[in-house]
Amino acid sequence: MASIIVVGGGLVGPVAACYLARRGHEVHMFERRPDPRQTPPAPGKSVHLVISERGWRALADIGADEDVRRISIALRGRTIHSADGRTTFQPYGRPDQCIYAVSRTALNEVLLDTVERLAGIRLHFDMRCVDVGLTDGTASFEDSRGKSVQTRQGAIVVGADGAFSAVRAKMLRRARLNFAQSCLEWGYRELEMRASSDRRAPLDPTTMHVWPRGGFMLSAFPNLDGSFTASVFLPFEGPLSFESVRTEAELLELFEGAFPDAVPLMPQLRRQFFTHPTQSLITLQCWPWTAAGRAALVGDAAHSVVPFYGQGMNAGFEDCTALDRCIEQHGEDWPAVLSSYERLRKPDTDALAELSLRNFIELRDRVGDPEFLRRKRIERRVADRYPDRFMPMYSMVAFSRMPYATAKQIGEAQDLIIDRLATVDGIDECWDTDVVQRRVEEILRSAAPRTAATSSVAT
Amino acid sequence: MASIIVVGGGLVGPVAACYLARRGHEVHMFERRPDPRQTPPAPGKSVHLVISERGWRALADIGADEDVRRISIALRGRTIHSADGRTTFQPYGRPDQCIYAVSRTALNEVLLDTVERLAGIRLHFDMRCVDVGLTDGTASFEDSRGKSVQTRQGAIVVGADGAFSAVRAKMLRRARLNFAQSCLEWGYRELEMRASSDRRAPLDPTTMHVWPRGGFMLSAFPNLDGSFTASVFLPFEGPLSFESVRTEAELLELFEGAFPDAVPLMPQLRRQFFTHPTQSLITLQCWPWTAAGRAALVGDAAHSVVPFYGQGMNAGFEDCTALDRCIEQHGEDWPAVLSSYERLRKPDTDALAELSLRNFIELRDRVGDPEFLRRKRIERRVADRYPDRFMPMYSMVAFSRMPYATAKQIGEAQDLIIDRLATVDGIDECWDTDVVQRRVEEILRSAAPRTAATSSVAT
Repeated sequence: MASIIVVGGGLVGPVAACYLARRGHEVHMFERRPDPRQTPPAPGKSVHLVISERGWRALADIGADEDVRRISIALRGRTIHSADGRTTFQPYGRPDQCIYAVSRTALNEVLLDTVERLAGIRLHFDMRCVDVGLTDGTASFEDSRGKSVQTRQGAIVVGADGAFSAVRAKMLRRARLNFAQSCLEWGYRELEMRASSDRRAPLDPTTMHVWPRGGFMLSAFPNLDGSFTASVFLPFEGPLSFESVRTEAELLELFEGAFPDAVPLMPQLRRQFFTHPTQSLITLQCWPWTAAGRAALVGDAAHSVVPFYGQGMNAGFEDCTALDRCIEQHGEDWPAVLSSYERLRKPDTDALAELSLRNFIELRDRVGDPEFLRRKRIERRVADRYPDRFMPMYSMVAFSRMPYATAKQIGEAQDLIIDRLATVDGIDECWDTDVVQRRVEEILRSAAPRTAATSSVAT
Repeated sequence: MASIIVVGGGLVGPVAACYLARRGHEVHMFERRPDPRQTPPAPGKSVHLVISERGWRALADIGADEDVRRISIALRGRTIHSADGRTTFQPYGRPDQCIYAVSRTALNEVLLDTVERLAGIRLHFDMRCVDVGLTDGTASFEDSRGKSVQTRQGAIVVGADGAFSAVRAKMLRRARLNFAQSCLEWGYRELEMRASSDRRAPLDPTTMHVWPRGGFMLSAFPNLDGSFTASVFLPFEGPLSFESVRTEAELLELFEGAFPDAVPLMPQLRRQFFTHPTQSLITLQCWPWTAAGRAALVGDAAHSVVPFYGQGMNAGFEDCTALDRCIEQHGEDWPAVLSSYERLRKPDTDALAELSLRNFIELRDRVGDPEFLRRKRIERRVADRYPDRFMPMYSMVAFSRMPYATAKQIGEAQDLIIDRLATVDGIDECWDTDVVQRRVEEILRSAAPRTAATSSVAT
C-alpha cells in the first residue's frame, strides 16, 4: 500500500482521502486553515451548496451519506417570484426527486468527522502548501506561524486545494499547463433572510427561491434553523450595478421596487449589502490535470464552474469516484491511474462548465418568461409519459450519473425535439388526446437515436 | 510629478522606467535577481532576441538606440537549409530592411546603463515582489536573503515582471481577471555553434538560418563573436520527440540525417542536447491589464507570445511607447491613462499572438515548400513595384509601426490577392510584360480598399 498526500481539507479533499484510505492507502491530508470545528466562519461567506445524485454516490461510497442527510434540506424545485408578487412553482424533476441544500461549514465538519473515523488518514491543519515536487511526489508545508517547513513524500500528491490551488500554481509554472480563467461581468453578495420569531419559515422551505429581473437577480436557499441565505446578483459596473448602488436610498429603491416581498425578510439588508464582500463568478479550466504520474488535481483545483447548476461540488466528488475507479482498474500503477483519470473526466467537466454558464442566463432571463415555463411543462409531460425515451437535461445532470458530456449532447438534441413539440396544435390544452399523442410519438420516434434512452446511463 | 513603482528590471521594465522618468516622474525599479552586470548568465538559456522597427522606436525615445546598435547584428533574411544540403535565401524585406539580433544579457546590461544615466530612477536589485496592493499603489518586496520586507507606495505600480508576473498573479487572485495560458506541444533546447578557429563564420552571419523538417526544426542566430546560437525544436512527446531521443546514437542519427551541414559546427552537441533545459512555447493572454487605476501590466506580464515572429520584446517596448502616449494625453489622471492604455493595446497584442502561432507553422512546415517560396517571390515583386499599394505582412509587422491588428487584417486580405495573382498566366516567367502587369493591376485595384495603402500607417 502506498502513502499519499492530499492537499486541501475542504470538501473534495476529505472525500478523496476517504476513497484512498478505503483502498488501504496511508493518507496525509494537509489543510491551510485551522480546524473549522474549532473556529467560527467569516460573515457573508457562508456559501450554500446543493447535493444531488453524483454527490450522494460519493458520500455513500465513503460512508458519510447518513450523517450528511441529517444536515441537509430537501428542495423539490424553484419558486419563481414575479415582479408583480405572484409566485410560480417549477419542479426540479418528478415529485420524488429532490436536490439537497447544505451549508459548506456544516458539510465540512461532517466530512472531517468521517475522515477521523477512518484508519489510515492523518489530518494536518494550519499547514499551507508552499511547494510541490511535481516529479517526485513531494510536497512542502509551512505551519501557520511561518516558523517551520515540513516536506513529505508520497506515491502521489492529490491537489484538492480549490480554485486558487497551490498545486496547480506549481504546475502552471513548471509544467506545460494550458489554463484559462474567465469571469462573468456579474458578482454576488450574500444577504441573510431571518427566520421570523415564531420559527415559521418566511418562505416555502422546500424550494429554492428566485427573483429573476433580467438585469439583476435575487436567489435564496433555506437553512436548517428556518432562516434563508439569499444572494443578490448584479453586474460589477454599469448603470445598474454594485458600483452604481452607493447609498441606502438607492439600495432601498432598487430592492423595494424589484423584490417587495423579500425586503421585509431582510432586516439587516442595509448593513449586509454594504459590508459583505462581492464575490466573483469564475470559470476555471486547465489541462493536463496531472504531472509526471505523481501529481493530480481534483475538484475546483482542476475545474471551477459558476454556481448556477449547483454541480460544482458534485462534480468534484465525482472526480474522486472516477479516480477511485481508475485505481480499481490500474492498482498502484500511478501513471496509468492518473492518465486514465484525467482523460475520463476532462470532457465531462468541460461540458459542465458550459451548462453552468447557460443556466446563469436561464435563471437570470428566462425562468420568468411564460414561453420558457410552457416549454418546461411540455418537457415534464413528455418525460412523465415516456420516461424511457426522454429525460430532461436538468434530470440527467442532477438525478443521474450519466457523464456530463453525454447529458449535454442529449439535452441539446432534446431541445430540438421540444422546439418541434411546442408547435404541435393543442399540445397545451389537449395533451391527453390521441391526435396530440400520435404526433408526439412521431416526433420522438424520428429523433430517438440521439436521446437519453439510447445512452448508457451510469447507475 | 508622481512617484512610480516599476516591478521588473529585465528588458521592458527599464524601457518603461526611462519613459516615465523622462516625463519627470520619480521611478523606483525593483528586480528580483541580482544586477546582471555582476553575474554570469545560466548556460543553455542565452535567449536570442531580434529588434525591429517598434523596438528601435522605443530605444530611440529613451536614448538607448546608439548603444544597442553596437551590440546587435543586422539580419537581412532567412537562409533555408534543405534536407539535400542546398540553401535558399529569403529576404525579410527590401535590401535596406533588416532586423537586428541581440543577446538578452547584453541588451539587459545596456538598458540598465541607460537607466542609471537618467535622473529620477532608483534601481533596487535582489528584491522579490511578494505583494501588491492593487487599489492603493503599494508593492512589497523581500530582499534575497528573505530577511526583510519593504513596502513602498506610488501613484501607480507598473508590472513589467515577465511571463510569470507576480503583479499579475496578485490580480489573478484579487481582481476579476480573465486569463489564459496555452502551450504548444513543442519545446526547444539551445545549442552552441562554435566560431571556427580562424574566426571565419561557420554560416552566413548576415541572416538567420533555418532547417525546416516538418516534424522538427533547427534554427540559428549569429552572435557578435562569430559563433551562432542554435535552437532545436521538437515535440515534447511522441514517436520523434525530446522524449524519444534518449541516447547519443539516437541523437546523432537524427541530426546527421536531418542537419548534416550543421552537425560539424556543434562539437558540444551531445553534451548540450542532453543537459540544456527544454524550454516551453507559451502564449499568455489576460484581461484587464490594469486594476483600480493604480496598477498596470506591460510586456510579457500582460501578453506573452511564442517567439516565431521575433516580436515579443518589440511588442513589450511598444506597450511602453503606448503608455507614454496615454500619459502625454491624460497627464496624471492615472485611471484615464491606464484605461486608455489597455484598450489601445489589447487588440494589437491579441493579433500578434495569433500571427506568432501562424509563423510557427510557416517556419516549421512551409518555408521549405517551393510553392510557398514562389508566393513569397510574387509578394516581393508586387511590393517592389507597387510599394504604395502592397506591403507584405512581415514588413508591416517588422518594418512599420502599423497596429498589429491592422497589419493582421490587411495581411489576410493580401493573402487572397496573392491567391489570385498566383493563378495569373506567366506571373513567374513574364512578370515584366504588359499583359501580366495589366492583370496584376486589375487584381490590385479590385481589392484595393482593404490593403495597406488605405490604412493609416504609424511612422
